[in-house]
Amino acid sequence: MTIPTSGIRHSVAPVMPAAPTRQRPLSATDVTITGGFWAARQRANAESTIPLSLDWMERVGWLHNFDAAAGGTLPQERRGREFSDSEIYKLLEAMSWHLAATVDPALEETVRAVTERVSAAQEDDGYLNTMFGRPGQQPRYSDLEWGHELYNVGHLLQAAVARLRTGVEDELVQIARRAADHVCDVFGDDGMRAVCGHPEIELGLIEFARATGDQKYRDQARLFLDRRGQGSLREIEWGRSYFQDDVPIREATVLRGHAVRALYLTAAATDVAVDTGDAELLATIERQWEATVARRTYVTGGMGSHHQDEAFGEDFELPSDRAYCETCAGVGSIMLSWRLLLATGNPRYADLIERTLFNVVAVSQAPDGRSFFYSNTLHQRTPTVPAAPDEVSLRANSGLRAPWFEVSCCPTNLARTFATLTAYLASTSSTGIDIHQYSESVIRATLPDLGQVRLSIHTEYPTDEVIDIVVEDSPDAPWELALRVPAWAKDATLEVDGVSRPVLPGRVTVTRAFARGERVRLILPLRPRWTFPDPRIDGIRGTAAVEVGPLVYALESVDLPDHAHVDRFVADTSRAPSRSADGVFVTGLLEDSDIHSWPYTEDARPRESNAVQAVALTPYHAWANRGPSTMRVWMRTAPGSAENSGSGSGA
Amino acid sequence: MTIPTSGIRHSVAPVMPAAPTRQRPLSATDVTITGGFWAARQRANAESTIPLSLDWMERVGWLHNFDAAAGGTLPQERRGREFSDSEIYKLLEAMSWHLAATVDPALEETVRAVTERVSAAQEDDGYLNTMFGRPGQQPRYSDLEWGHELYNVGHLLQAAVARLRTGVEDELVQIARRAADHVCDVFGDDGMRAVCGHPEIELGLIEFARATGDQKYRDQARLFLDRRGQGSLREIEWGRSYFQDDVPIREATVLRGHAVRALYLTAAATDVAVDTGDAELLATIERQWEATVARRTYVTGGMGSHHQDEAFGEDFELPSDRAYCETCAGVGSIMLSWRLLLATGNPRYADLIERTLFNVVAVSQAPDGRSFFYSNTLHQRTPTVPAAPDEVSLRANSGLRAPWFEVSCCPTNLARTFATLTAYLASTSSTGIDIHQYSESVIRATLPDLGQVRLSIHTEYPTDEVIDIVVEDSPDAPWELALRVPAWAKDATLEVDGVSRPVLPGRVTVTRAFARGERVRLILPLRPRWTFPDPRIDGIRGTAAVEVGPLVYALESVDLPDHAHVDRFVADTSRAPSRSADGVFVTGLLEDSDIHSWPYTEDARPRESNAVQAVALTPYHAWANRGPSTMRVWMRTAPGSAENSGSGSGA
Repeated sequence: MTIPTSGIRHSVAPVMPAAPTRQRPLSATDVTITGGFWAARQRANAESTIPLSLDWMERVGWLHNFDAAAGGTLPQERRGREFSDSEIYKLLEAMSWHLAATVDPALEETVRAVTERVSAAQEDDGYLNTMFGRPGQQPRYSDLEWGHELYNVGHLLQAAVARLRTGVEDELVQIARRAADHVCDVFGDDGMRAVCGHPEIELGLIEFARATGDQKYRDQARLFLDRRGQGSLREIEWGRSYFQDDVPIREATVLRGHAVRALYLTAAATDVAVDTGDAELLATIERQWEATVARRTYVTGGMGSHHQDEAFGEDFELPSDRAYCETCAGVGSIMLSWRLLLATGNPRYADLIERTLFNVVAVSQAPDGRSFFYSNTLHQRTPTVPAAPDEVSLRANSGLRAPWFEVSCCPTNLARTFATLTAYLASTSSTGIDIHQYSESVIRATLPDLGQVRLSIHTEYPTDEVIDIVVEDSPDAPWELALRVPAWAKDATLEVDGVSRPVLPGRVTVTRAFARGERVRLILPLRPRWTFPDPRIDGIRGTAAVEVGPLVYALESVDLPDHAHVDRFVADTSRAPSRSADGVFVTGLLEDSDIHSWPYTEDARPRESNAVQAVALTPYHAWANRGPSTMRVWMRTAPGSAENSGSGSGA
Repeated sequence: MTIPTSGIRHSVAPVMPAAPTRQRPLSATDVTITGGFWAARQRANAESTIPLSLDWMERVGWLHNFDAAAGGTLPQERRGREFSDSEIYKLLEAMSWHLAATVDPALEETVRAVTERVSAAQEDDGYLNTMFGRPGQQPRYSDLEWGHELYNVGHLLQAAVARLRTGVEDELVQIARRAADHVCDVFGDDGMRAVCGHPEIELGLIEFARATGDQKYRDQARLFLDRRGQGSLREIEWGRSYFQDDVPIREATVLRGHAVRALYLTAAATDVAVDTGDAELLATIERQWEATVARRTYVTGGMGSHHQDEAFGEDFELPSDRAYCETCAGVGSIMLSWRLLLATGNPRYADLIERTLFNVVAVSQAPDGRSFFYSNTLHQRTPTVPAAPDEVSLRANSGLRAPWFEVSCCPTNLARTFATLTAYLASTSSTGIDIHQYSESVIRATLPDLGQVRLSIHTEYPTDEVIDIVVEDSPDAPWELALRVPAWAKDATLEVDGVSRPVLPGRVTVTRAFARGERVRLILPLRPRWTFPDPRIDGIRGTAAVEVGPLVYALESVDLPDHAHVDRFVADTSRAPSRSADGVFVTGLLEDSDIHSWPYTEDARPRESNAVQAVALTPYHAWANRGPSTMRVWMRTAPGSAENSGSGSGA
């Protein structure tokens, strides 16, 4: 076992396709976020989210499950749900990625110690699970619908991939290899013809194949993908679509069922498509992504419309108030879009990643990294209630962020996302560097046949509209610097050599032999804008939201006179929202709140209302930070506004 | 044990308050529905729903549970959920009420035989439950949150009340008395300070007290009510409001949590308020009803906005597409409104009963009485899928009616509702007779100090607008005939002695010494009308529905050109809906269905559309009877319509 003690590693980014793709990822150490919004979140992750998650997993006994497995005291001492093992693996993954860019011997020792406890629980044939297979427990693989046995192994493999990709081949990798071999033995071509109720093993296997170079894991991932959609899982109340076992992935037209399951599965399928050169599968997945984004995605980028089955809704079923938008689905959506971005180079995938990072991932984690939303509603009708600061929360939807949950998949998923955030900023093409996300940062890359490039990016984005890219180091030969102009950006300009030119949304490039110190300036004007929904979305017809750059804004009752309920506010969309140093503002009316009559009438009844001047909005990611509050992203608008019509033109 | 063999009985209506109320119920034999809409449904109930439910309960083993209890083969042979015992009791109740008006020795024998099987399972101390208390089962009363032990007893008591109220005192009554005594022993003043997770025992006890005259059962019901809202049940993910254990009933302002639980509890509280002369509690319940009807009720009368916890939503959270509107909640709502109608005489309660009967109860049961909706959505986006005709359905929301469910509370609840339907048509006041619901029927009543009245009612309502009430028998002295003019009725007229006069919604009366053969004619014009929702209901803003009399109408895709999806239809509310012998029609546009772009935009994009002439609507209760179909009650409207504004005037 090798435990590195210095910061020198051979390290690469989370996903390294085995076959050529349009874009190639950089490594975890190639990019450093040096300041701004995401640096603060990465710090909160390292200083709070990761250590607190570890504390919680000791407190609630999920780590002890491994000790109990080794000590023969299961099932009596078993704590937590059937997927609790995976939480430890996700945290190991987060810690491993974090260690790629940090010298932290204490954290290395933690990883080693946790790995040792996991190792002691592994059985001789490679099987590793604290919930199944012992006397008094259900037999192995007897409950593929709900047991999560293969799901757990998938996360173990992703943790091992993080080790391998950050230059470490340690006991965690060995545990993973034994577990993966066991899975191939049991579920291989001649084995059980089955799939796991929660996709994840596919992702773990294909990434493990990439990291180890052993194609049998890729073949096993493909086998699981091909077996899915055959109805091998039992029928349940919500239908087999919950498990994506209703239709083979090649025949599906849109994501459906449990959102996290659907997104993990489709991300894995993208990897398989890329690594096996399956252009048809890739095209199918692109069409599924398109349909999902056009019809089943919230303005925040959130996915999942149902609390009941944590599932995608039907087309245009996107109610704000019951938006589930599970944090883990946001993570899964970024994983999928990132893979499609690498495969195709299409900036629309980076657009969705940005939207999801700022409006799902960022809202879920409290700025101090100590509490989390499990689901991310767009409309809070009853004032939020603080979660007990030191108690496991039962509820996915109590309104304020909680420190831990009975089902606590989200904190560790955030931890690994923040630990790999640098990976999403840039990639290399055959001709140069693409910058996908803008943050104060340093980017290093080696261009094939050309040499080293080093860029420093200076910006307060998304608070400020100026993004300066300074070439700190460059080969002498020309290369292509590609920048993403977001789809929302109007009147964007690119300044090169002091000459400014307008640029349209999409991928804009500057190809030249850059000199050291040369600066390219991208300006993305942050004029606040009204956004109107497709009138087929029942839940928000006759409303509008405000967006500024990549940020969705929200109205909170703490900003209304007398903390009036947000549902009483009717926005005046004939006046553009304004932005100043004090914030973003809209105007409108505040209606009276009579409530004692049958609400379905032949003649619409007018209600008294008063004009309200200049109500402040809050970035959605920052809502619920100022005490109990009601909240709406989509504000009611005065009826008859052309913007509500589906046939008029915007403000 | 007395098993009557003739139709001669002393029988009274389902609820007979112990204290004087504004209105007094008639008995199960005082009213006969002789034709029309409800006669057909009662026939379907007797000929199909009741016998099929019994068949199913044998097939799925719920009846056998009692044999197994007696035979000592539990828990091995136990089948069904923790509330399956109650299904047998609900069916016994339905059969008992049905026998009040029918001579059917075979059915009497069935009741006797089932009663015997239940009796054999009762333990010496009166405890009766097939799920708890035996070796290998959980101990008695160890899971009050979910165990449904007291809930089951409540339904047993209601079955016994049906026997007593139809003049039979048999073994079923004895079983119930032993069970009720056991409950009083265990949960009395000095007993366990606890409540059942699902209210129902309260209703059973108070009605049993009325039927037996033994006030200890009423006192126990009040004890359970007073204990509720103290947080004695464990906290769960959805909060204690799910069980109505969050707030004492006297402090609550609106119904909340699981809809059936809330409605059963509040119905029982009404009985207790009436029987103990508690005017303050009654007034509190009236206010809760008001708030619930104004803010948490669907246009169909349906209640319950969430699939997840089968619960009321928050104020104005009434999405059509996720409307749960459980059939049993409709039954519970009728039970509550009926009690409030008796207590107060306020016709608004009869209005809601009518709405709920025609648009929840009637839609749930297929016209042939052989299949059922568990939940009653107002918007079906994917074409309905036929349920397997001979299979237990896992799903509450598959779109077409199913013959039986894993949780099959609804068919038996419908069975007992149809068997007691006559009770809701009329009641007596201190001065005469009130007619609440209009059907081809015969009504007999004895007026205090005056004598017998017999009325025959002739009408095709709600298909026809003319209701003729003919006095077939009358005392010589004057008495008051009171008729309900529904809240929706415009230009209604009342004709007495050939003289017609306009009447307004509410309670209209004719007081006189009626002659035999005298006719009173009420005309309730059935002009179809556009109905617009309060703009605070997010889920249906910018839509309209059509109502005709008490019937809500729906648009089904089978009536659109090429079976177009109903979501593409935009109704023209500037033109009144029309009604002819061929049906009810509206006009509008059919939009194209482009679906491949981000649906949140700065400028609303127009979509191509084509005018559609005269689209037929279907009464909501009759939807899903013509094969796979999508459906909307609330049709999208052209934006800018004054009717959508909340400040304009209607069509």
